[in-house]
Amino acid sequence: MASFIEAIQERTQRIQSVLCVGLDTSLAKTPDVLQSDANPQLAWNRAIIDATHDLACCYKPNLAFYLIYGSEGLETLKETIRYAHSYNVPVILDAKFGDIGHTALHYARSAFEALEADSVTLNPYMGEESIAPFRKYSDRCSFILCLTSNVSRLDFQTLNTPNDDLMEKPLFHRVAEKIGEWNTNRNLAAVVGATAPEELSQVREFLGDEMPILCPGVGAQGGDLEEVLWAGHAGPGTLLINVSRTIINASADPDFAEASRREATMFVNQIRTFLTQYQEGV
Amino acid sequence: MASFIEAIQERTQRIQSVLCVGLDTSLAKTPDVLQSDANPQLAWNRAIIDATHDLACCYKPNLAFYLIYGSEGLETLKETIRYAHSYNVPVILDAKFGDIGHTALHYARSAFEALEADSVTLNPYMGEESIAPFRKYSDRCSFILCLTSNVSRLDFQTLNTPNDDLMEKPLFHRVAEKIGEWNTNRNLAAVVGATAPEELSQVREFLGDEMPILCPGVGAQGGDLEEVLWAGHAGPGTLLINVSRTIINASADPDFAEASRREATMFVNQIRTFLTQYQEGV
Repeated sequence: MASFIEAIQERTQRIQSVLCVGLDTSLAKTPDVLQSDANPQLAWNRAIIDATHDLACCYKPNLAFYLIYGSEGLETLKETIRYAHSYNVPVILDAKFGDIGHTALHYARSAFEALEADSVTLNPYMGEESIAPFRKYSDRCSFILCLTSNVSRLDFQTLNTPNDDLMEKPLFHRVAEKIGEWNTNRNLAAVVGATAPEELSQVREFLGDEMPILCPGVGAQGGDLEEVLWAGHAGPGTLLINVSRTIINASADPDFAEASRREATMFVNQIRTFLTQYQEGV
Repeated sequence: MASFIEAIQERTQRIQSVLCVGLDTSLAKTPDVLQSDANPQLAWNRAIIDATHDLACCYKPNLAFYLIYGSEGLETLKETIRYAHSYNVPVILDAKFGDIGHTALHYARSAFEALEADSVTLNPYMGEESIAPFRKYSDRCSFILCLTSNVSRLDFQTLNTPNDDLMEKPLFHRVAEKIGEWNTNRNLAAVVGATAPEELSQVREFLGDEMPILCPGVGAQGGDLEEVLWAGHAGPGTLLINVSRTIINASADPDFAEASRREATMFVNQIRTFLTQYQEGV
């Protein structure tokens, strides 16, 4: 079976899309027609996947939106991942795990074995020990937070950190450097928010043209899709653009799935315009 | 009902213990006599709680050790928290959540409502937005990672960060300052590892004498209990010393619970000697 990175390279080329659809389905916003379903969240996810599987390079459910419903939520998460796999679409579990040693190993097994996710998001604050157990899964991929899309990223991620090398560098540059160093199994990747395209270019330069970057913050959070594509894309499978709410909450009416597909199509059309220009070297 | 911080203040004084027992029960190490139980992990946790509830100021299950068993694991976690509550012992859910906005809100509801934990651990990398939804639960408490006990804390947490204030400060000092700033509801706390007692003293000075500090790293990780108590304790409920494996994995024999109690008693005896000296102002 192909690794996650190979799978998204292949899909980017075949379906001409780098769209990652975030499955952050909150029951408070469930479309009305699904309210009476035995498992509205699973029915909703399946409907979104049915409507977008040919447009989505991958799906990204966020653990929080399932953990909140306890054991039932975890079953829904597992079934959702399986359902995406039934269309051969890879899945990133967005959990931002950040722990060490035995605990990190248990998280890695939770994500990659119990839940069967292809990829996971991780938090770098505790350093390499929080990455190592995930890195051992050679066919999976770990996206490490570098520069996030939210306003309070400025609290720490952009602090200047001149150290032994006397270089004036924001913290997220140091994180990007470490991601590069740690990438001994060529299965690490980075998260850089769409709200800072210039910084995305910088991280792309640090990390070279092979490493995937997951880019949240387009859509509801205000990042500009075209700008981000030019800043971060470096060939097939190197940039994934996540959109969650704009797609999944496009409508709560009976035609919610069509509305989600319309939104996804708008993003993918922009992506395809870019990919054509990029491939032509414009 | 008392808030988490009031509860640990009261318990510290009443039972003369600041021991936090980490319930990181991995099925691979389940005592033999429990192997045939319908739910060995829950039976194990209950036995540990039965054997240590009068010695433990609080319990701290780590999410990873339950998530790995999927929906059944989450039920075990919930029942474990309930069982600790049946002895009126407060519980810290160690999850190191670090996400923003709606997602952080869903994690806060997962921890405090779905799982009924009294307290939670959080990761500061994404800044104040990842703390805000938790802070709104005024009777709960959020322990924010500041300086952790593992070796690769040195990757980022101790980087020098001279910024607009031109002060030479390691990143974890900036995190400690922000924890102080963010503590508008007086329900935030910090995590500082036992492996760096000098830095623990520094953080205690930054944060003043009221804020609780959770201190992992005594026992298996090599932190010195007495040194850490002198460095971080500032009165009832201000320092919690976590010990996990040394207590829960004390033995896999039929008398495992007694063995756990013996280990916990050794730590608590040291703590009581310290508390007596501290109260006498020695």
